[in-house]
This record gives sequence, structure tokens and C-alpha cells, in this order.
Amino acid sequence: MTPTLKLACELIAARSVTPDDAGCQDIMMQRLGAVGFNNERLRFDDVENFWSRRGDQKPVVCFAGHTDVVPTGPEAKWEFPPFEPQIVDGMLRGRGAADMKGSLAAMVIAVENFVAKHPNHKGSIAFLITSDEEGPAHNGTVKVVETLEARNEKIDMCIVGEPSSTNQVGDVIKNGRRGSLGGILRVKGIQGHVAYPHLAKNPIHLAAPALATLANEVWDNGNEFFPATSFQISNIKGGTGATNVIPGELEVVFNFRFSTELTADILKTRTQAILDRYELDYDIEWALNGQPFLTDRGSLVNACVDSIRAVAGIETELSTSGGTSDGRFIAPTGAQVVELGPCNATIHKVDEQISAADLDTLAALYENILERLLA
Amino acid sequence: MTPTLKLACELIAARSVTPDDAGCQDIMMQRLGAVGFNNERLRFDDVENFWSRRGDQKPVVCFAGHTDVVPTGPEAKWEFPPFEPQIVDGMLRGRGAADMKGSLAAMVIAVENFVAKHPNHKGSIAFLITSDEEGPAHNGTVKVVETLEARNEKIDMCIVGEPSSTNQVGDVIKNGRRGSLGGILRVKGIQGHVAYPHLAKNPIHLAAPALATLANEVWDNGNEFFPATSFQISNIKGGTGATNVIPGELEVVFNFRFSTELTADILKTRTQAILDRYELDYDIEWALNGQPFLTDRGSLVNACVDSIRAVAGIETELSTSGGTSDGRFIAPTGAQVVELGPCNATIHKVDEQISAADLDTLAALYENILERLLA
Ligand SMILES: [Zn+2]
Ligand SMILES: [Zn+2]
Repeated sequence: MTPTLKLACELIAARSVTPDDAGCQDIMMQRLGAVGFNNERLRFDDVENFWSRRGDQKPVVCFAGHTDVVPTGPEAKWEFPPFEPQIVDGMLRGRGAADMKGSLAAMVIAVENFVAKHPNHKGSIAFLITSDEEGPAHNGTVKVVETLEARNEKIDMCIVGEPSSTNQVGDVIKNGRRGSLGGILRVKGIQGHVAYPHLAKNPIHLAAPALATLANEVWDNGNEFFPATSFQISNIKGGTGATNVIPGELEVVFNFRFSTELTADILKTRTQAILDRYELDYDIEWALNGQPFLTDRGSLVNACVDSIRAVAGIETELSTSGGTSDGRFIAPTGAQVVELGPCNATIHKVDEQISAADLDTLAALYENILERLLA
Repeated sequence: MTPTLKLACELIAARSVTPDDAGCQDIMMQRLGAVGFNNERLRFDDVENFWSRRGDQKPVVCFAGHTDVVPTGPEAKWEFPPFEPQIVDGMLRGRGAADMKGSLAAMVIAVENFVAKHPNHKGSIAFLITSDEEGPAHNGTVKVVETLEARNEKIDMCIVGEPSSTNQVGDVIKNGRRGSLGGILRVKGIQGHVAYPHLAKNPIHLAAPALATLANEVWDNGNEFFPATSFQISNIKGGTGATNVIPGELEVVFNFRFSTELTADILKTRTQAILDRYELDYDIEWALNGQPFLTDRGSLVNACVDSIRAVAGIETELSTSGGTSDGRFIAPTGAQVVELGPCNATIHKVDEQISAADLDTLAALYENILERLLA
């Protein structure tokens, strides 16, 4: 077994179901400390995080990731025990293999190898690791970034180890993410009996054309890096359960995934304008889950693209699709941020697994990127 | 206390929460048997019903009603104990005072008085009483009517004691009822993640314009006796609860209250045509709760109108508005059916009560109607 696979197995064997770290960060800090990193535990409430840095010069190239994993669901549904890592038919199996203990192992090995070759590398190498990425994410990366900002410690370039790839490691990297804006819309009517509709106001009837308009609206057309902004209703609920009662309120939960072509404020204004056009009596509880961000072609994106071509022999695709990641908290500080990790086909599912060979390639990729940036 | 109020109190004191009769029908049958009625218990499953008739000639004038009452809800919310009838400030208080033990008492007293004056009246007087009007209504009036039909025993005119009045007893009588057609619509989509809308089909988005069209549709314009047919959505539900999941199905519960201008089949066809226009993948579970019926001006309506003018000194209004009643099961046999009862302001609510004087007037009205039809 290669050092990367060995370390990955060690991390997978720890039951670090979010927000539990289960000792993973100790394993990482021990390895990093041994090659000259300065470790700093940053615990917030019940969440373990750490910041670790080697060197005091700029630029700061940071590896970011999380030690927590999503719950397994009923373990009986798995073909193999989720916390007993094994390599079968070339696949590394276990909860977190893809998201993202494999990446964490690859980062550590890459750094160990790089430091061995370049003990006096340029700039600094850093790690920003949390155990609260899969949970509410209130006491994780966002708090560490606040701590760094407060003392004016800057990350210049950040590689997030999230599983970005589709068919083989490196075929896709994410150089940005759409923003995510959530809303809970409550449309008010007047409750009544279905036999006396003139005494009631049915909020479902009143809202239906407005919802149809929201669902049909073209919010933007995206741009070179972003697909068009999308609006989706995830939940709708109205009614007392009784079949003869017109309800007094309708609740609609919706979510925008939005491009850099517009802002959360523009979306709020346009949503309200549509609802106002239908003269609805309503309120909306908004939740901005993440601003969109984009890392344009530049030193970090170029290093990644070039390393993937050199090490894996493929042309990578830049993408901003998919869900949010902790990159949303790091990008606003001005850092270049890229997500580069293994294939994501099995993440958050039963029988999570990735190609073992891909994981060794990933370690080589990370090391090659460091070569280009800090050698 | 007048005999009507005394009997009403006796009935209210029995806790006959649907489908329990709690002895009310025994009280009524005992009184009716004493004045020459032939009582026939008709129990179906756990539901008590009775049919009682005096005379074997035509026409058969029938009083119809129910001994069951709706639940009280938390008794602590009542100003007075719901099953301890009392008369305070001229109001008879208690669960069932308005719906419809007051009417049952008035019917019995009216018949006792009428029979005393006209022991050899024309035609027949009958009672059709159930204890399953407020519940599912599967083993009540509908089964009694089937029994009568099977032996070709016909009701010619039927006075249902439901609380039809608005401000004083007799100001409104119902000479028909709208039909009630229910439906559960299930619109199918494809579940997915809000970040990947192109891989999902959001049934809420797909259904919204169709629901808007259904809510806006003019189904008919009603007629002299019926308001326009109305469509109301009572319940809508879609979503897994998670804010990042596009649901796979939307459920919409709706109800038509419809006039004699169209039929249940026409409504089904037109509803499906609208849904098909939006190319929805759906199914509908239909439930025809009641056909519309109408008793035009004729011997029964005229007797009611004239009696109300003579006894209460007011002009009555003919109406078909409001909820369904057991009249829907009797009218299809060809009977003339009218609902005449006390004011309905407090029915199915806490602190149910009616004017005590109105109840004595109601007994006089019922007796006067018998005078006009069978003296
Ligand atoms: Zn992850
Ligand atoms: Zn009733």
C-alpha cells in the first residue's frame, strides 16, 4: 500500500461523523508538525478545527478541507463496513474515501514529499481543516477565516480538496461556485369553509400564478464560467388536512443558485416585484447561504491546469456547477480558490469509494502544483 | 320551561358524540310510539338509525335529522359545560342546541300537538333519524333510504331539521344543495438536487400554471337557485423537508361545490383537459360526496313559506348555499326536500347556543306546515 492509501485508511477508520473529528486532525497535525509546520488548534464550541503553516513568507498556498463525514445511514445497506477501509479491485472503499479523507491524505503526503525536496521553499504552505463542513458549518471554516482576518493573515491561493472530478481525477476542477440564496415565502389568505369561498381568501389560488411566473422567469443567462441562475421550489405546504377548509396561509420554501451576473439583493428585489405584481399579502424570510465566487485564470488555475496535463496527461475542464463548499468562506478574503479532488460519483451515498490509483495521482498532482508555485 | 325546551335539554344532556347515539333515539321513539307511530330500528354496523311512521296513506311527510353531534374540542374552552344544557339570557346552551337536537325536540312536540288535534290526519307522518350525519355518513341516512327504496316505500316531502336560518328562525330555508366533488391530484416529477435542476423535474413548477388556470376557471354562472360552481384547493403538499431537494411529487386536494348547471362528469372532464393542456404527468382520485339537488316551488316549499309568514311574520329566503346535508341522500328518490331549522351561527363551534324563543317558534312552524299538508 502506498503512503497516501495507508494514511487515507487510517483517517477513514476514525468514525468522524459530522461534527465529530474523532482524532483525524491529531493524526494530520502530528504528521505536519514532524515536517516543520506550526499547528494551531482552533476549537469553536464543539467543533475542532486547525490552522497549520510552514514558513512566514508570501505567497501562502493553503490546502483546505474537512475531516467530518456525512452519516452512513443504515450500515446494513452497505456492501462493506463503512468505517473499515479496504482496497478491493483497485477501489478504496469507506465512508469519506471520496469526500474527503482521500484528499486529506493526498495533501499530507504531497506536502511531506515536497518539503523533503524543498526544505527552504518559497512562500508558505498552510492547512485549514475543519470538522464542520457537512453540518451547519457555523463553527468551522467561517470562524477560522475570521480569526485569520482579525490578525491580517492572508491566504493567497487555496486548494480545496472537495471531490471535483467526474470520470478520472483532474478531469474537472471548480474555479468558482454559484451563490445560494434561500427563502421561505409565506402567503397570507383568510381561512374559511370551502362551501363559503366568498368569505375566505385562498392563498394557494392567489399564489399559484405568481409561483408559475417565478418558475418561468429568466433571471440571467449565466456567463463564460456560470450556468444561468436557477430558481427551485423545494417545499410547499398549505392546508389544515381537512378537505372542507380553505387554509389561511401557504408556505413555499425556495432556493436560488446564482451566477456572478447578479447579486442576492437583485434577486430579492426581483422576487418581491413579481409577488407584488400579483398583489399578494406575504412575507419572506431570506437566508444567504453563500455568495458566488470566481477564480479567473491566473497563477493558481494555471498551475492546476498545467499540473493535470503534466501528471495525469489530460486537459481539465473549469466548472462552477454543483453544490456549495467551504470555498465560499475563503474566496471573499481575496484568495484565489480552486477545488481539486477525486471523482464524486459516490459521495454522500452508500458504498462510497474511489479509485486507489486516482488517489496516488492526486497526491502527485498536489505536489506538482506546489512545485510550480513554491519551489 | 316549554315542552320543546324541556325535550331539547333532555337530548342535549346525552353525550352523543358522532357516531354515538347515547340513547337519544330511544327517547324520541318512546314519545312517538306513545302517539301512534310505528318505530323501526335500523342499525347498520355501529350506527343507530330509526324509521318511524304514523299512517299508511300518501303523501308521506317526513322529518329527517340526526342525533349525533360534533366533538366539543377541549371543554375548558367552553364558557359552560357542553353537555349540561341551560337557558341563560334567553339562550339555550349546549352542544347540539343548534345542530340539531333543538330541531329534533321541535319536531316531536309539533307532531304530538298536531296528532292531538288531528288523530285521523291525511297521509302519513314519518321520522328518518340517524346518528351518523357528522361522521363518515356511510351507515346512516343513505342506508335507511336504501332500505325504504328496496321495499318501495317513498317519502314524498321531507323537512330536514338542519340549522338553515341566519338571524331569526325561518329567515332562510334551503330548497336544494350544491353538489360536492372532491379530488386528490398527484403531479409527478423527478426528484433531484436543487444544484442540478437539469437532472430533475420539479412538479411544483410544472403544476403552478395549471393550478392558476383551475383557480381562475369560470365553471358556470349558476342559475336562479344556485350560485356559480366553485373550485377550491384545500391542501397542497410537496417537498422532502430538505431545502436542497427538488421533490418528486406534488399532492393537491381540491373540492368542487357545483350547481345543477353541470355534472360531476363534466367537471372531471374539464379538470383533466386543463391538466392535459399543461402536459402534466398526474393522476386524480375522485370522490363524489353529493349530487346537487333542487326542490322547486311546489307544495312543500309553499307550505314552508306560508307557515313562516303566518307564524313568524317574515318572508323567507330560498337558498342553496352552504354545506352538504343528508338531504342529498333523500332528494334523489324523487322526494321534495327542504331544510328548515334554527340559526346556524354557533354550529360546530364552542359555546353552541340558540334563541330559546326561536325553538318554540320552530315547533309551531313544523306544526303549521303539517296543518297545511296533512290536516
Ligand atoms: Zn466534502
Ligand atoms: Zn347537522
